[in-house]
Amino acid sequence: MRAPVAPIAIHRVEGGRYMATDDILVTEEPLEIRLGHGPLDDRKEMRLSVTMRTPGNDEELALGFLFTEGLITESTQVVRVEQCNNVKEEERGNVVRAELHPGVALDPMKWQRNFYTTSSCGVCGKSSIEAVHATCRRPIIPWGAIDPVVITALPDRMREAQTVFKHTGGIHAAALFDRSGNLLLLREDIGRHNAVDKVIGAAQLAALPLAACQLLVSGRAGFELVQKCVVAGIPLMAAVGAPSSLAVKLAGESGLTLIGFLRGDRFNVYAGG
Amino acid sequence: MRAPVAPIAIHRVEGGRYMATDDILVTEEPLEIRLGHGPLDDRKEMRLSVTMRTPGNDEELALGFLFTEGLITESTQVVRVEQCNNVKEEERGNVVRAELHPGVALDPMKWQRNFYTTSSCGVCGKSSIEAVHATCRRPIIPWGAIDPVVITALPDRMREAQTVFKHTGGIHAAALFDRSGNLLLLREDIGRHNAVDKVIGAAQLAALPLAACQLLVSGRAGFELVQKCVVAGIPLMAAVGAPSSLAVKLAGESGLTLIGFLRGDRFNVYAGG
Repeated sequence: MRAPVAPIAIHRVEGGRYMATDDILVTEEPLEIRLGHGPLDDRKEMRLSVTMRTPGNDEELALGFLFTEGLITESTQVVRVEQCNNVKEEERGNVVRAELHPGVALDPMKWQRNFYTTSSCGVCGKSSIEAVHATCRRPIIPWGAIDPVVITALPDRMREAQTVFKHTGGIHAAALFDRSGNLLLLREDIGRHNAVDKVIGAAQLAALPLAACQLLVSGRAGFELVQKCVVAGIPLMAAVGAPSSLAVKLAGESGLTLIGFLRGDRFNVYAGG
Repeated sequence: MRAPVAPIAIHRVEGGRYMATDDILVTEEPLEIRLGHGPLDDRKEMRLSVTMRTPGNDEELALGFLFTEGLITESTQVVRVEQCNNVKEEERGNVVRAELHPGVALDPMKWQRNFYTTSSCGVCGKSSIEAVHATCRRPIIPWGAIDPVVITALPDRMREAQTVFKHTGGIHAAALFDRSGNLLLLREDIGRHNAVDKVIGAAQLAALPLAACQLLVSGRAGFELVQKCVVAGIPLMAAVGAPSSLAVKLAGESGLTLIGFLRGDRFNVYAGG
């Protein structure tokens, strides 16, 4: 397995003075997700996508990605996800294969990653939201009343559980909590969409009830992250940073409770609640 | 033109107390980039990509994207970039078309956005770097000695010139400075890669000598941003946040000076310098 962090010798400059020192970097490497049926067969593999990610929990990332992009609707549609060893030495650890259930067709049109470019529904905020709703099989069960005591406790619990961030300061986190604010799962990645996919993939493997969970993300709440929550049926998403216009609109039209600028004893409620 | 920010009524919670108030969100909307030859002709247009972006400077974004992704090597290969009016009412303002010089072929294989999936060079850090170098026509002219006084002055100059961030707290910025630290251009966007593409596209339209410029980005320095600098021939990139392992490796192998954690009178030098 590739390591999520890497040491490096750098120069630190402070007040105009140079000092040679050691630092730790967060690892960024490409991950290719392949799809196939039955035993590994190079001739029949389909390359789905490549994402830049931090190594670790790659099987969860692949499963979560398939789910939150609407390519599968149940985790049982994937028989297993495994590292591919039929690759060049230097690629080993950077290629995973999801074996689909025999009943799930390998349809290249459907598996096209960017559903905007292939949909005929247009390029506007409204059509982006419609595309998410078309993908989405489970309507969100509204979260209901927000408890400020529970919400404001989440960021500290996430930070305490983060490991890579402490060393590098350069990584995003996504954490799932139950209704009472107990931490269930935490995943980190250089890409915030990957951190969310990893934690949702892990939740599926653990058969956690996503409809009863709240998700906290370390960064901002853009359209893509809210989309992933909506497709996964998570009813509350909180972000340490700001939301975007389209994220708020999608949350509002989907019944998702969206919280932003969650810092200290303060937060903003942008949708639901 | 669509506005870069949008007003919204929210609830702010502080110390457990709810208060209805007004807030301002950064706008996020899809932008489709099309390619064509000669006068607008629907039958011959090619859809290149869709990106979620903050409206404004869309022509610069398209031009910068084509350049930093290695799809064009000179700005003269694009005759003009214009908003498309042959679209549905609700899409207006979200579709631009780059008219290519007649001598530039419309080759769908070449224009495939994600060069990792189409290249046969493998999925590893080494091959990602090789792919950038294969795209890159201009070797970087090394920046040479770093002047800490100049470097540490850049973040304040960028923040003073930012407009959308002040209102929303939810947007990335990229700024070009000359060797003495004078601000030349600043662009903001919800996506940090878009902010970089906008500022590089604007620089091309203004015929600025990128080889004599330094770029500051408000967030972290991932592989993708360093890639854009390397392809554009910018010799120094500074980031307020952390760099990744692959970004440092690409910078080192390309002769790019890479600075991270630029805050107050401190910064780290990860490559070059």
